[in-house]
Amino acid sequence: MYKFEELVSRFETYFNQRHFPANPGTLYDPVQDFLALGGKRVRPVLSLMGNELFDEILPDAWPLAAAVELFHNFTLIHDDIMDKAPLRRGKATVHAAYGEPTALLGGDVMLVVAYEYLNKIDSRYQKRIMQLFNRTAMEVCEGQQLDMDFEKSASVDMPAYIHMIELKTSVLLAASLRMGAILGGASENNQHHLYEFGRNLGIAFQVQDDYLDAFGDPDKFGKQVGGDIMANKKTFLMIHALQTADEPVKKELKQIMGTNEAGKVEKVLNIFRACGIDAWAKDLKDTYINKAFYHLEEIAVISARKKPLTELAAYLVQRDK
Amino acid sequence: MYKFEELVSRFETYFNQRHFPANPGTLYDPVQDFLALGGKRVRPVLSLMGNELFDEILPDAWPLAAAVELFHNFTLIHDDIMDKAPLRRGKATVHAAYGEPTALLGGDVMLVVAYEYLNKIDSRYQKRIMQLFNRTAMEVCEGQQLDMDFEKSASVDMPAYIHMIELKTSVLLAASLRMGAILGGASENNQHHLYEFGRNLGIAFQVQDDYLDAFGDPDKFGKQVGGDIMANKKTFLMIHALQTADEPVKKELKQIMGTNEAGKVEKVLNIFRACGIDAWAKDLKDTYINKAFYHLEEIAVISARKKPLTELAAYLVQRDK
Repeated sequence: MYKFEELVSRFETYFNQRHFPANPGTLYDPVQDFLALGGKRVRPVLSLMGNELFDEILPDAWPLAAAVELFHNFTLIHDDIMDKAPLRRGKATVHAAYGEPTALLGGDVMLVVAYEYLNKIDSRYQKRIMQLFNRTAMEVCEGQQLDMDFEKSASVDMPAYIHMIELKTSVLLAASLRMGAILGGASENNQHHLYEFGRNLGIAFQVQDDYLDAFGDPDKFGKQVGGDIMANKKTFLMIHALQTADEPVKKELKQIMGTNEAGKVEKVLNIFRACGIDAWAKDLKDTYINKAFYHLEEIAVISARKKPLTELAAYLVQRDK
Repeated sequence: MYKFEELVSRFETYFNQRHFPANPGTLYDPVQDFLALGGKRVRPVLSLMGNELFDEILPDAWPLAAAVELFHNFTLIHDDIMDKAPLRRGKATVHAAYGEPTALLGGDVMLVVAYEYLNKIDSRYQKRIMQLFNRTAMEVCEGQQLDMDFEKSASVDMPAYIHMIELKTSVLLAASLRMGAILGGASENNQHHLYEFGRNLGIAFQVQDDYLDAFGDPDKFGKQVGGDIMANKKTFLMIHALQTADEPVKKELKQIMGTNEAGKVEKVLNIFRACGIDAWAKDLKDTYINKAFYHLEEIAVISARKKPLTELAAYLVQRDK
């Protein structure tokens, strides 16, 4: 069994190659360069781990992992266009550096190359894996659409927000695991529990992401603390605060969010603290972590095989950056 | 053997269904509505014809044809974003009507659904068809990138322009035929000649498109005659004129193209006529048609089976609208 770091390193060795033709460089170089910037490679490693939970890592697990990572990067490039984001991984986003048409088209070819990797998978598994991959790809797009819809709507309730997060973030983590498990020959029941492990872990991860954006240590957190508040983003914290605070506090919160005044972040954080939102978020995260671990427990393999996943889960939801 | 119109009608019957989930409607309704606007359905019918050239139409030919049509519509939606086109099929483009993010994401899900149709194809053919589909998809994106690169570059030579047209237009026609032929059990050699038939036909089609944009009958041509000239687009005609005209004429042409003066289209057309560009374009079209028919001839099936393709080719390159 490999640890997360070992699998990241093995994946990097496999993935560190040119995924596109040389020409036209105006199309392919920007997206190849974007891939080389790295990222945590969590999703491809989840596919490898999903495989290794049930069997030795099969040769087909590598193109599967590459497909997953390419798909993830395709969504980042296209989401950044839609969100008009200037920065990603500390560099200018593809559209900011090369223009929207190249970023749009570059994302498109990245998705096609992801399918070319899926086409390398043995016919015995290909249809089942592609079916899950396709369903997941659509769900991730649905999540992005709902996220944009929510930005425009006056109020979003918690179930709708959680559903959006599931689609936008969780299902790809869950599916990455399950596609690996399909290669590993897992039973339907084991696949189901592994998927649910990933889905709940993904929600816990997002709760934590929202939490860190507000309460993270500025020295450790990669992004600007308070970024979501500055951008008036709906987050677990904000939605819960708007749903549970007393009327005067709610009114104050809305008034502050309607401005871009100095000290906006600090004022909102003070309200969050006064309402106990920080403790609530930690509890919510724990709820989903517990659900995730319940499903991991239910998978019918000896617990020693689950160790890398247990460690990865702990790393993902206890990270402070 | 079915005629083109019969296959269009049979394809419409198959394709006239909801290709997307109901929710979120903000994502899926715009792209479903776009598909319902129609189009000539040339590409899916080419897949059906490629199949029927060698065998009866197999059940798998229908999802293949749907995948091809979805892919084509995906490129239209994304190209319209990049080209900032306001109209398509007489209606507002998806991005003009619903905003760029929805058009971008809607195109993405359309591509994913195309792959879901490919995933319905029997495992005996799926890998070979997906491989050609993927290569073609990348080439079409390359063609769009080159087209945009050319818009920015001062001069484009004819071989580079023809290469761009091949990628942007021809390869999908050629691959649509060949993917059908794979289902029909065609030999490699027959597949090759069918592909070359489609590739050359596609170039002839584009020569004609450029010709009609300049010299078409305004009452019959669907688009505004002279649209390419107004938009300063590089076309077969313009590139040839700039390469072959005498220096003073070339200078005059460049001067006119640098303006948006009244009568611009008529002035350019007068130069085209004086240089014999209209006759040259007709000759060029014939050259590619002849190449196409040479390859059709070379396919080792009785000529009666080729009749629908012969008729379709004549229809495509002799159309006046």
